[in-house]
Amino acid sequence: MGLRYSESLKLSFDFCDVKADVKLPLLLAHCLTVSARQSAKIGRGNEVLLQQYGLIWVVTDYDVTIDRVPRFGETVTIETQAISYNKLFCYRQFHIYDQAGHAIMTILSHFALLNPKTRKAAMIPDDLVAPYQADFVKKIKRPIKIDELQDPMVQAYQVRYFDIDMNGHANNSKYLDWMYDVLGHEFLLHHRPCHLTLTYIKEVKPSTQITSGYHLEQLTSYHEIRSLGQLNAQAVIKWQPMTTKESETN
Amino acid sequence: MGLRYSESLKLSFDFCDVKADVKLPLLLAHCLTVSARQSAKIGRGNEVLLQQYGLIWVVTDYDVTIDRVPRFGETVTIETQAISYNKLFCYRQFHIYDQAGHAIMTILSHFALLNPKTRKAAMIPDDLVAPYQADFVKKIKRPIKIDELQDPMVQAYQVRYFDIDMNGHANNSKYLDWMYDVLGHEFLLHHRPCHLTLTYIKEVKPSTQITSGYHLEQLTSYHEIRSLGQLNAQAVIKWQPMTTKESETN
Repeated sequence: MGLRYSESLKLSFDFCDVKADVKLPLLLAHCLTVSARQSAKIGRGNEVLLQQYGLIWVVTDYDVTIDRVPRFGETVTIETQAISYNKLFCYRQFHIYDQAGHAIMTILSHFALLNPKTRKAAMIPDDLVAPYQADFVKKIKRPIKIDELQDPMVQAYQVRYFDIDMNGHANNSKYLDWMYDVLGHEFLLHHRPCHLTLTYIKEVKPSTQITSGYHLEQLTSYHEIRSLGQLNAQAVIKWQPMTTKESETN
Repeated sequence: MGLRYSESLKLSFDFCDVKADVKLPLLLAHCLTVSARQSAKIGRGNEVLLQQYGLIWVVTDYDVTIDRVPRFGETVTIETQAISYNKLFCYRQFHIYDQAGHAIMTILSHFALLNPKTRKAAMIPDDLVAPYQADFVKKIKRPIKIDELQDPMVQAYQVRYFDIDMNGHANNSKYLDWMYDVLGHEFLLHHRPCHLTLTYIKEVKPSTQITSGYHLEQLTSYHEIRSLGQLNAQAVIKWQPMTTKESETN
């Protein structure tokens, strides 16, 4: 297990949705910023990575367990550590603690290295990851295999200018935006996620149209994002219904 | 002129667009968070306002002058002060300074008080605003009158779940998102805003469809957001083309 790094975050108005819950896509994006700051602190920031190695990190998978969704006004602590790596992936964990010190969320993420010019994956150099003090493991964790959807409900979304980040493709957080949105305002107003598996397959390009397809089976939603005839991302989200009292107090 | 309050902000990856410029809608939303923290510091936070007065602040107008667009990685200082108020409006200024201490942006905003239950404007109580030490002025600044567009280019946008904030309507920053987006990826890739006037007329409701209409005349774009047969917001944005060199270094 590697070096730990933590930061606190006060959940502002802009970080929260209409029911005062944290916006999960923004929280995941913020976690990446936290891990980037750990990297910078130990001399492995994104600039060093690009200038010295000609590479960038990309997230390929998330596995998120949510015991309690953080809420507006709370100050949470985000603790992260690179836990292990192999030739192709680094595995990084985030724990989110509330003010009483309870772990309320756990996020496991898979990172890979990409050459931004060729868009090809690169092997992980030992000297790049040595400062994180994570264990080298031979075994490559296979992401959970999600079946493609048969006859999903589908909605089209035009990729917007602000969806595109400095890497020139739709930002990771946007996929989850599209997956959430297709479930509709009423469903999201009365349900909270308790588990999320998300796998990124192919980047979404600027100025394209994507489709967000889903299938809801009891309280599990199955998602896929497609564009230009390709599968871009898949996810499975488990939901809990909110009690009438919870809905009323929002 | 009232009490000054300032905070610094390091412009993270998530705060910036594909060309590494700050996302203006996010920066304006962040400025509101900064002013809310000033209010909380002097005992006039949003909770006090709602619990003791039964009111919330809403922004009705922005006038933004941009000498230089802040960029990824910069640490800027946001300084704000309530400069004056009358029976119906508070006028608040924000200055954004770069690390060398140069003022690179100035934002003048008009705030009004709203009863969130009746959605009606309320008079501004003297004792509510006294701690800001702003001057009382009789004169009400009229927002710049923007003519309605004749035969604009129009694009429809479905209001998304995450567009809605804790006040139950589309967040202020979303109007500017829709206004930007309709200009298209290529235009936004090669132009930067230097002046913006934005006026909010009517709130956008959840689960509706809005249209973002615009008319581009030389380097000035005229915008309006409409939904349910009503005019929701108008804006005028002045743009500067980026040089070939500037475009290439992004």
